Amino acid sequence: MSDMLAIGKQIMASQPFSQLLKTEITQFAPGHVEMKIPIAHELKQQHGFLHGGVVSYAADNALTFAAGSMMNVPIVTSEFKINYVRPAIGETLIARATVVYVGKTQAVCRSDLFIVKDGVEKLCAVAQGTIVRIGQERS
Amino acid sequence: MSDMLAIGKQIMASQPFSQLLKTEITQFAPGHVEMKIPIAHELKQQHGFLHGGVVSYAADNALTFAAGSMMNVPIVTSEFKINYVRPAIGETLIARATVVYVGKTQAVCRSDLFIVKDGVEKLCAVAQGTIVRIGQERS
Amino acid sequence: MSDMLAIGKQIMASQPFSQLLKTEITQFAPGHVEMKIPIAHELKQQHGFLHGGVVSYAADNALTFAAGSMMNVPIVTSEFKINYVRPAIGETLIARATVVYVGKTQAVCRSDLFIVKDGVEKLCAVAQGTIVRIGQERS
Amino acid sequence: MSDMLAIGKQIMASQPFSQLLKTEITQFAPGHVEMKIPIAHELKQQHGFLHGGVVSYAADNALTFAAGSMMNVPIVTSEFKINYVRPAIGETLIARATVVYVGKTQAVCRSDLFIVKDGVEKLCAVAQGTIVRIGQERS
Repeated sequence: MSDMLAIGKQIMASQPFSQLLKTEITQFAPGHVEMKIPIAHELKQQHGFLHGGVVSYAADNALTFAAGSMMNVPIVTSEFKINYVRPAIGETLIARATVVYVGKTQAVCRSDLFIVKDGVEKLCAVAQGTIVRIGQERS
Repeated sequence: MSDMLAIGKQIMASQPFSQLLKTEITQFAPGHVEMKIPIAHELKQQHGFLHGGVVSYAADNALTFAAGSMMNVPIVTSEFKINYVRPAIGETLIARATVVYVGKTQAVCRSDLFIVKDGVEKLCAVAQGTIVRIGQERS
Repeated sequence: MSDMLAIGKQIMASQPFSQLLKTEITQFAPGHVEMKIPIAHELKQQHGFLHGGVVSYAADNALTFAAGSMMNVPIVTSEFKINYVRPAIGETLIARATVVYVGKTQAVCRSDLFIVKDGVEKLCAVAQGTIVRIGQERS
Repeated sequence: MSDMLAIGKQIMASQPFSQLLKTEITQFAPGHVEMKIPIAHELKQQHGFLHGGVVSYAADNALTFAAGSMMNVPIVTSEFKINYVRPAIGETLIARATVVYVGKTQAVCRSDLFIVKDGVEKLCAVAQGTIVRIGQERS
C-alpha cells in the first residue's frame, strides 16, 4: 500500500459517518481517488435501490478527497452538483474523482459513480463541485 | 396529524436509509415538506461537524418529498445542486423544501437546510433540483 | 432614482456584452436586484424561443449584481446552476436575484427568471450560485 | 467536411443568437462537439474579460449539440451547472462537449471550456447538464 493510500485510510477511519456506511478508500494518488461502499440493506430506499443520499454522499466525499490529494490545507466542500443517470441496483457502489483545476484556495473536481452488479460496472451518476480551504470561504 | 403527514411518515418509515439516519418528517402539505435529523455522533466527519453527505441526503430527500406532494406518480431525483454556507454544528438538522414548478413528468424544487444549535436555527445549505417521473427519464 | 440604482446602471453601462443585449437594471438595493432584457429577434434560437444562453447570462449577471450589492470588493461568479422550466416566448425577460448568504469572501445567491408575454409574467428558469471576491479564489 | 458537421453548421446558422456571437461549429460527431467563438470587444464585461454569460452560453450550446448528436428528436437544455476556473482573457473561446449518458428521453453531457491566448489553450470553465426531448419534460 502506498503511503498516500495509508493516509487516506486513516482520514476515512476518522469520519464516523463514513464508518457507519462502511466506505473503503481503494486508490489515492495526487489528483485521483477511488472509494467503494458495499450496498447493505440499510442504505436503500423504499423501492430497493441504493438511496440517492448514499450516492450523493459518495460523490461529495470523493470530490473532497480528490481535492485533498493536491491541497496541503484543511478543506471542505463548498458546493457540488450531481446527475443520477441509472437506478443504483447492485452489490457495490464505486466513486472515482479527479481534480480538474487546483489553485491556492480552491479546487474544482469531477466524480463518476458506478454501480457493480453481478461483477459488471455501470455508470449511475456524475458529479462536479468546488472544494475550498477552510476559513477562506466562510466568515 | 393530517392524513398527508401520516402518508409521509409511512413513506419515510419504508426507507431503510432514512431509518438509519433517524430522519423524521414533521410537515407535509402540497408543495411543501419539513424533515428533521438528530445530529448523532455517527453522522459526523473528522472535524466534529455533521458530515456534508448527511446534509446532501437531507436536501435530496426533501426535494423528492416536496415534488411527491404534488405528483401522483412514482418519482425519483434526477439531479440536484447544493451550496454549503456554514459548518453544520448543532443538535438538529432541519430540511425544508418547496416546489418551484411542477409539470406532468417533472418538478423543480428548492430546499433550505438549517442547523439548530442551542435552540437557534441558522441556514447551513441551500439546494435546487429536478425530480422526475420514474420510467420517463430512464431508458 | 436611488443612488444605488444609479451606480448599478453605471456598472451595467460599462459591460459591453450587457450593452449588446440591451440589459437594463430596474431595481438595485442591498441583497436584491432586478434586470430586464427586451427579447429581440437576434437573441433567439432556431425554434423562435429566447436562446437559453441569454437566460443563463441574465441569471449569472443578476446573481453577481445581487452579491455586489452586499460585498464592497471586486467580485466574480465562481459557479452557478440553472433549471429551465418553461420555453421563453414573449416580449421581455426579467431576472430577479436575492442574496441567501454573504460572508467576507463569498456570497450565495438565488435568481428567478420570468418571461413576460402579453403583459403576463411567468417563471421560466431558476438559478443558484456562488459569487467570490476576485483574487481570493483564483491562483 | 463530414455530412454531420455540415448539418451542425446549418443548425448553428439557424440560431440568431449564435450568429450574433459569431459561434462556429468546428467538430461534430456522435457524442462529441467542438465550437469556437472569437472574443470581440462587445462580448466582454467591465474588467476586459470575456463576459461569463458568453462562457455559459457556449457551455449550454455545446451540451445541447453533443446531446443532439445522439438523440434523433427535438431537444432542449433542461438544466446545467458551470464552474468558472480562470478569467477568460484571450482571442478565442473553445467549447468541447461529450455525452456521458444517453437514454430515450434525456442525455447527460459534460463540457470543457478553453480560452486561447497567444496560441495557448487553457481550461477556463467546466459544465455538466441534462438535455431532454421537447414535449417530454414540459407540461
